Amino acid sequence: MDTRKEVFHQWLELIENGGLSKLKIELNEDNPANIAEFFDEVPVDKQLLVFRLLTKDNAADTFSFMDSDMQEDIVNSITDSEVRHILDDLSLDDAVDFLSEIPANLVTRVLKNTAEEKRKIINEFLNYPDDCAGSIMTIEFVQFHEDTTVLKAMEQIKKTGVNKETIYSCYVMDARRVLVGMVSLRTLILSGDDIKIKDIMEDDVIFVRTLDDQEDIANLFKKYGLIALPVVDNEQRLVGIITVDDIVDVIEQENTEDIEKMAALIPSEDEYLKTGVFTLARNRITWLLILMISGTISSAIISGYEAVLASSIILSSFFPILMDTGGNAGSQSSTLIIRGMAVGEIDMSDVFKVIWKEIRVGLLAGSILGLVNFIRLIILRTPLNVNITVSLSLIIAVVVSKSIGCLLPMAAKKLKFDPAIMAGPLITTIVDATSLIIFFNLAKIFVL
Amino acid sequence: MDTRKEVFHQWLELIENGGLSKLKIELNEDNPANIAEFFDEVPVDKQLLVFRLLTKDNAADTFSFMDSDMQEDIVNSITDSEVRHILDDLSLDDAVDFLSEIPANLVTRVLKNTAEEKRKIINEFLNYPDDCAGSIMTIEFVQFHEDTTVLKAMEQIKKTGVNKETIYSCYVMDARRVLVGMVSLRTLILSGDDIKIKDIMEDDVIFVRTLDDQEDIANLFKKYGLIALPVVDNEQRLVGIITVDDIVDVIEQENTEDIEKMAALIPSEDEYLKTGVFTLARNRITWLLILMISGTISSAIISGYEAVLASSIILSSFFPILMDTGGNAGSQSSTLIIRGMAVGEIDMSDVFKVIWKEIRVGLLAGSILGLVNFIRLIILRTPLNVNITVSLSLIIAVVVSKSIGCLLPMAAKKLKFDPAIMAGPLITTIVDATSLIIFFNLAKIFVL
Repeated sequence: MDTRKEVFHQWLELIENGGLSKLKIELNEDNPANIAEFFDEVPVDKQLLVFRLLTKDNAADTFSFMDSDMQEDIVNSITDSEVRHILDDLSLDDAVDFLSEIPANLVTRVLKNTAEEKRKIINEFLNYPDDCAGSIMTIEFVQFHEDTTVLKAMEQIKKTGVNKETIYSCYVMDARRVLVGMVSLRTLILSGDDIKIKDIMEDDVIFVRTLDDQEDIANLFKKYGLIALPVVDNEQRLVGIITVDDIVDVIEQENTEDIEKMAALIPSEDEYLKTGVFTLARNRITWLLILMISGTISSAIISGYEAVLASSIILSSFFPILMDTGGNAGSQSSTLIIRGMAVGEIDMSDVFKVIWKEIRVGLLAGSILGLVNFIRLIILRTPLNVNITVSLSLIIAVVVSKSIGCLLPMAAKKLKFDPAIMAGPLITTIVDATSLIIFFNLAKIFVL
Repeated sequence: MDTRKEVFHQWLELIENGGLSKLKIELNEDNPANIAEFFDEVPVDKQLLVFRLLTKDNAADTFSFMDSDMQEDIVNSITDSEVRHILDDLSLDDAVDFLSEIPANLVTRVLKNTAEEKRKIINEFLNYPDDCAGSIMTIEFVQFHEDTTVLKAMEQIKKTGVNKETIYSCYVMDARRVLVGMVSLRTLILSGDDIKIKDIMEDDVIFVRTLDDQEDIANLFKKYGLIALPVVDNEQRLVGIITVDDIVDVIEQENTEDIEKMAALIPSEDEYLKTGVFTLARNRITWLLILMISGTISSAIISGYEAVLASSIILSSFFPILMDTGGNAGSQSSTLIIRGMAVGEIDMSDVFKVIWKEIRVGLLAGSILGLVNFIRLIILRTPLNVNITVSLSLIIAVVVSKSIGCLLPMAAKKLKFDPAIMAGPLITTIVDATSLIIFFNLAKIFVL
């Protein structure tokens, strides 16, 4: 990491001092992912200069690793013929990723400089909704007819020489072009030249459809340990494949989305530092408003018990401990259940097991918290009746909070909402109200 | 998903009605991941019976997809010779995964039934600390000498026939057995027979060391879009490789860990449903206690302003709205920053940009919340001085909470703590105290 910064520093010095020919050599020897990272450090007015030092291959590869803002800047400053070169070399899924992020006028200019056939396919891909198989698949795959021999198949691979890892899983079709099997490059290499593909293929092939959700697809990759997955259309014909490196991105993206929802944020795919203040505020204000308005229920409860409060004003000083402990206990439970459902460890049929578990955990944790609080208040010489009210409230509040915390995410799932919204913030608001009711009713018994 | 349940149902009926020969055929035609899933449905006293229906190959594959409890049950009931067969066929990383989860006496029995050479390697692997490269790598990889020709290399691959995707990236060593390059199977296939490996290999190969942290390794896979990564020892000799399917698991595991930490839980790798009540309670009580004790600061603040409260008892009914809104606003910021640092979008050098952004977002969101609350309290005919106190407190509390929420995770990182602990629960506790101080000081001005 640190050595990388040193290299970047040396390169920046080469730019300053006109050592461009040396920079050209060093840049082109490095990994495109690193070169793309370097561009974040290059002064804006030198970016084009540096980009033009790259060989044709490296330019396209580096371009594919850049974030969309940088890609937009580059395309805005290069010539049409340079755009054409990059688009020619860019793999189709990278091209689609890039085009779906930039302004419409730039898309038009880029597509104008794309070969007819590729343009047609790109346009098709741009029409797939976000987050579905069609939007993350690539059409660079290898497909054989089932009657082909191993020798012919290997010749076909050598001739077409498709990109990167996409040749390691090859797919097999019948006469109607329907997907009927899969054969790995490993099997091809280990099989005799004259054997027919249909005799060595795996015919029980796992596939998805163009409109299937990317989260479900990621779960398939996890379950079966796949490196690629074929995508078929309505007629069961192969239209693309999804490779595991794109799934890694999907998993990160879905996790970020869940984490943001769990913190009462409207999920966004944009990087924090590149998102404007208004957008950031907009993504937060919705939930803050909903939760603030819901919070007025707790205010109403407190106002309703004003008589109890008037008799012992000290009671209000226990609101924070009670509400926070309830909220934290509930968040813990809801988080475990939300995550458990997301990774497929918990499903709806487990609901009774889960509640029974949470009640017992709540009793255990609540009792310890109640006891610690009881001892603390004895030391502080708090009146015994107040002490009993607070400590008992804590125990009951923890049990109730844990039950609410585990039930609501499961209820959300049942009602086809995303369970992730039933996390900390919303649970806290609901649990606050119930904890206060418990507290005031106990206070009526012990304090009044 | 539903069809799967139907298939399981049919299989269970076959077990009931003695249709074992039909079950044997159907089981062995299915995917080992599915067969392993089916075992969760099989009654305990029938599991051994069903397991013995599997062919030798399928038995080992299915075994590798089972969770460790099921593996333990199976190994406890089969014979030594069956254990030996499974261990022979199990890939090394799967064997190590399994052995690191089961009780010591069972490990001894299993190792006794393992071939001498494999036993030595397994013992070595079991000694690597959790979460490091050594614990997730496999030794099933292909390695050539740099002077080998393509023809000889392909012969070597065909002869050794290593498992699955591990042949797609092959590694190159020099005379001292030091890792000097990497060559993909794709390149081998596309190159002439007589070319030497060193002339076609990529010599700028990215590698890690046995004790490197798995989270850093996952980040390398994401950055470079890798499908495999070599692991070297201190003498720079190749000792194993890590493949992307294992990294997918690492990413999920690290995300779960972060999410659990952010909800004030002590992270655990065990499945929720399989964890006992005492363990679950223990993982939660630590933070609940810490947060409850910290919450006493808020109590002390309220007690300290008892005079203010006595003059207007209605003030305490605004505690929930104020504390919850502050807590939620702070959680939103801390979550975005924690996640941004985890995925590498934000680093320490961005601290001033982040604070400035959060202050502006806080002003914007706080003003809207304050305004909505002001209007609400006018409608409710709350006295204007109380209204101003509450609404102004909300605005200031949101700005302060957002600043605290973004600063604390970055401070934690600076101090080499995990930023994830500075999430919702802890932020809420800290923000509660500050919000109350703001509120009481404004109350002193406007209400007293």
